[in-house]
Amino acid sequence: MAIKLETLRHSLSHVLACAVKELYPGVKFGIGPVIENGFYYDFDFSKSKESPKEKDLPRIEEKMREIINSNLPFKKENWNVDKALKFFREQNQDYKVELIKDLKKKGEKYVSIYKLGDFIDLCKGPHIKSTEEINCNAFKLNKIAGAYWKGDEKNPMLVRIYGLGFETKKQLNDFIEKQKQAEEVDHRILGKKLELFIFDKDIGAGLPLWLPKGAILYHIIENYLYEELLKEKYQWVKTPHIANIKLWEISGHLSFYKENMYSPIKIDDEKYQLKPMNCPFHLKIYRSKIRSWRDMPLKFAELGTVYRYEKSGVLHGLTRVRGFTQDDAHIFCTPEQLSNELVKILNHGLKILKTFGFKNYKVYLSTRPEKYIGTLKYWEKATRALKYALNKKKIKYEIDPEGGVFYGPKIDIKIRDNLEREWQCTTIQVDFNLPEKFDISYIDKKGNRQRPIMIHRALLGSVERFIGVLLEHYKGDLPLWLSPVQIWVIPVGASHRKYATEINRELLCNNFRVEVRDENETVSKKIRDGEIQKIPYILVVGDKEMKSNSVRIRTKNKDIGMMKLRKFIERAKKEIDRKK
Amino acid sequence: MAIKLETLRHSLSHVLACAVKELYPGVKFGIGPVIENGFYYDFDFSKSKESPKEKDLPRIEEKMREIINSNLPFKKENWNVDKALKFFREQNQDYKVELIKDLKKKGEKYVSIYKLGDFIDLCKGPHIKSTEEINCNAFKLNKIAGAYWKGDEKNPMLVRIYGLGFETKKQLNDFIEKQKQAEEVDHRILGKKLELFIFDKDIGAGLPLWLPKGAILYHIIENYLYEELLKEKYQWVKTPHIANIKLWEISGHLSFYKENMYSPIKIDDEKYQLKPMNCPFHLKIYRSKIRSWRDMPLKFAELGTVYRYEKSGVLHGLTRVRGFTQDDAHIFCTPEQLSNELVKILNHGLKILKTFGFKNYKVYLSTRPEKYIGTLKYWEKATRALKYALNKKKIKYEIDPEGGVFYGPKIDIKIRDNLEREWQCTTIQVDFNLPEKFDISYIDKKGNRQRPIMIHRALLGSVERFIGVLLEHYKGDLPLWLSPVQIWVIPVGASHRKYATEINRELLCNNFRVEVRDENETVSKKIRDGEIQKIPYILVVGDKEMKSNSVRIRTKNKDIGMMKLRKFIERAKKEIDRKK
Repeated sequence: MAIKLETLRHSLSHVLACAVKELYPGVKFGIGPVIENGFYYDFDFSKSKESPKEKDLPRIEEKMREIINSNLPFKKENWNVDKALKFFREQNQDYKVELIKDLKKKGEKYVSIYKLGDFIDLCKGPHIKSTEEINCNAFKLNKIAGAYWKGDEKNPMLVRIYGLGFETKKQLNDFIEKQKQAEEVDHRILGKKLELFIFDKDIGAGLPLWLPKGAILYHIIENYLYEELLKEKYQWVKTPHIANIKLWEISGHLSFYKENMYSPIKIDDEKYQLKPMNCPFHLKIYRSKIRSWRDMPLKFAELGTVYRYEKSGVLHGLTRVRGFTQDDAHIFCTPEQLSNELVKILNHGLKILKTFGFKNYKVYLSTRPEKYIGTLKYWEKATRALKYALNKKKIKYEIDPEGGVFYGPKIDIKIRDNLEREWQCTTIQVDFNLPEKFDISYIDKKGNRQRPIMIHRALLGSVERFIGVLLEHYKGDLPLWLSPVQIWVIPVGASHRKYATEINRELLCNNFRVEVRDENETVSKKIRDGEIQKIPYILVVGDKEMKSNSVRIRTKNKDIGMMKLRKFIERAKKEIDRKK
Repeated sequence: MAIKLETLRHSLSHVLACAVKELYPGVKFGIGPVIENGFYYDFDFSKSKESPKEKDLPRIEEKMREIINSNLPFKKENWNVDKALKFFREQNQDYKVELIKDLKKKGEKYVSIYKLGDFIDLCKGPHIKSTEEINCNAFKLNKIAGAYWKGDEKNPMLVRIYGLGFETKKQLNDFIEKQKQAEEVDHRILGKKLELFIFDKDIGAGLPLWLPKGAILYHIIENYLYEELLKEKYQWVKTPHIANIKLWEISGHLSFYKENMYSPIKIDDEKYQLKPMNCPFHLKIYRSKIRSWRDMPLKFAELGTVYRYEKSGVLHGLTRVRGFTQDDAHIFCTPEQLSNELVKILNHGLKILKTFGFKNYKVYLSTRPEKYIGTLKYWEKATRALKYALNKKKIKYEIDPEGGVFYGPKIDIKIRDNLEREWQCTTIQVDFNLPEKFDISYIDKKGNRQRPIMIHRALLGSVERFIGVLLEHYKGDLPLWLSPVQIWVIPVGASHRKYATEINRELLCNNFRVEVRDENETVSKKIRDGEIQKIPYILVVGDKEMKSNSVRIRTKNKDIGMMKLRKFIERAKKEIDRKK
């Protein structure tokens, strides 16, 4: 069965080549193998009058159906190598000639040839007997792309046409539907399609590189957090990515967190560690000055990139990586302030998650793990404080037994996305232990030295993972304020270009992220591209729009009619202010 | 001579204690040793009616002069340990009692005592014979601070009064002047005084931690660059701080830049490196997509934190560190675009340096170093292009022979600061070699694959070093747009607090970084503090200002009179827009 399907797909690639030969005389053929779920064929159109575009695929499919319906047989022949060379040379099939030469060099005397109507191909086979074995409705050409001959960048660039091939129409449609659903949701596919981020094997697994559009999205989120935290009287700090191993000895990470830390770097006979957490740095900043009760609560925030070991098998796109940026903060407070601060952080966390569109969540209280530092008394106090805050906010929660961090218990908020999946984001941890390890203090009203309590908290958790979750939650259709490109302006014809540029300028002045698409393509092709790239607003401008200083608006794959530019700007600004 | 000066300083600390005893009855004495350039004494004022503040130092000095002028002798006596214990216990001198107990434990039978008038101290000496040996005009109390008893945070916090002591008035004044000048300029001292950054031995040399105010300054510069580069059509990207060693093998860094790179980190049996440069990552981003001549020039920018080895001996504040953030960018262009792009970068670099206040600079052209990659032909081409750009801009330059990077020659712009010192900032490097190593290409108009040229460029160089240079250039008096705190509002009395808060709100609405100083201190003390902290505008508000909706403005240590609040806001906004 599996072999039969492979043969069928291979034969489909010959039918494709045969159709292309008829439609694009002069085309040169590369190779046409079977791939997962289908097939492709590589073509060189440099000697043809024109080169097919994506829009031409249905026409090629039509021609393929014609060929299939004429019940052509696949005929195999064995040719002498020199006869084959002569034949393909006469046909100007340079790539085939190259392949046959390679075979000759290897000592081959004969090569196998398959004939399908007029199309004669160098091919090992096997093939089906006749095109009548192919179901006309069970294949589809689905992609056209560039590919180097033999995959080598030094060689010419060919055009590769991809197709899907199945035995039944239902199998084909099921596959297309499944693929569409997966692509719609999977942030790894969306990340590629929307050109947000890549991974590269020479750089390493779990280490994302942010492409320009992804970096814009990243920056919007960073900027939003920067302003939002200033309002809540957080003070931003910035710390290095490595520190002497001494720091991790003091903090206890070296004993309690070692499996997540990388091997040390040697500098001048001392060992340094890539940071897996930001807390010890913030404790050092706390210690840099004598602190008074007047300074409490003192809140240090940092978008700190940390590196933690994860097994390569569990790495997954942005949601499980080896390097990520925590929206980290540490609140130092007096015992009297603790519960109030916890309630404030809970409120703030839920507000921020709501801004990003997450309204459903589940809350967990994680208790003392097997390996821990500090006294049981401290652990009990900390756990009580967390419970108090949850009860005060009347938040229902579940206990996650032994799920705390080595230095303290925590509240975790797991958001529920549009597909009803849970993602851990916000974490709030109460810590009596690190203040002791780092021996930090403040002077109370009476002039005595007191030990502050430390709250560790991240609201989004990891910016990287949060972006992964956002993409899946919205299926890539990000809210306007988060979209890397918010608006496309498409002039209908050359005479509308100037007007499109004016609109572009006006929108830029109003701080929109906008692009004019004035390439020589049809308007409908551009609209389709824009929708694939999830551009929130596509503004088409022609004569009518120009005359009335208006734009024709397409949003969420729908034309919602003409609107004065001024009014559109108002509408879009309001949408951004509402952050949805 | 040196011993005599030490003795003099030691005696001065006793004179200080003697004066404090008279002025603050009930004071308990800690210790009072000699330090570089002077002395200090630690006091516990918890049993006194009041505790001296900085403003009280002149009064204490006056009392010291009185004591000195009465020509009191220093009298030494040897007391039996138990007699001493009894005496200091009766005097409630707990700290002295503790010291004597320590001596007793060590087996001492006798302790030496010094008497100066009523003040009797446990002290090894030696001392001068009489206060008449002290020059009344050659000492000064210069600082008051908190210090833990025996330097241990578990002990009570004492008040430490510091003094300077010399033989002549001229020596004292010379020292004060020299210290003032050094503090005014040295960014390490300014960084501490203005609470911008710290270093910590447990974290490691050359790894700065940015305190809240420093992080604001850092953020302002980052934000300015972000917006400025968008205008110039740069595309921001973001890449990790480590990469597989394979990347550095491809780039050639492992062979040509090894001495500046740290030892590798092992992950899953592969080696990873902390990044010393961002270029290989940007090359990988370039390669992530097929590029066309239409995309050129393609400009990737990143504020990328890199880690490079420097010997511990050459580390210096922010200007020579082991981890720093480059305002890095790579421009990929066609050969035809090269010289135009170089001229554009030169213009842009000089414009940005001017915005920060650097108008004088010197330009160097650095040629092929001893160790290099690529062909001589490429090196010549690259050097010619750089010369062309310099000549086109009519910029005078000097040759720095063999000063280029291993992959290409470069133009360096060294700015001249207000003290006529040179600092390297902008660097522009032409590179034919890395595009080859990474085998990157674009498709030209004819559909052929072509190799782009790569320009490496940083305008500020390192954000950390640039901040160091900025601080020294301005002696800490940063322009308004760069000041972490721009405005202080000081209410004259309690009845003006509400008005001060209103002004604060109005200024915050206008995006100023502002603080209300309504602590219980005198207005003049607050003004002095504000000037030490280099606050650009200090607004004092009392009855008169309240009535007329005005503020009294102090700037650059001068009162410039009353102004309507609305007018002041206009003035300050203009100043920010002009960026000076």
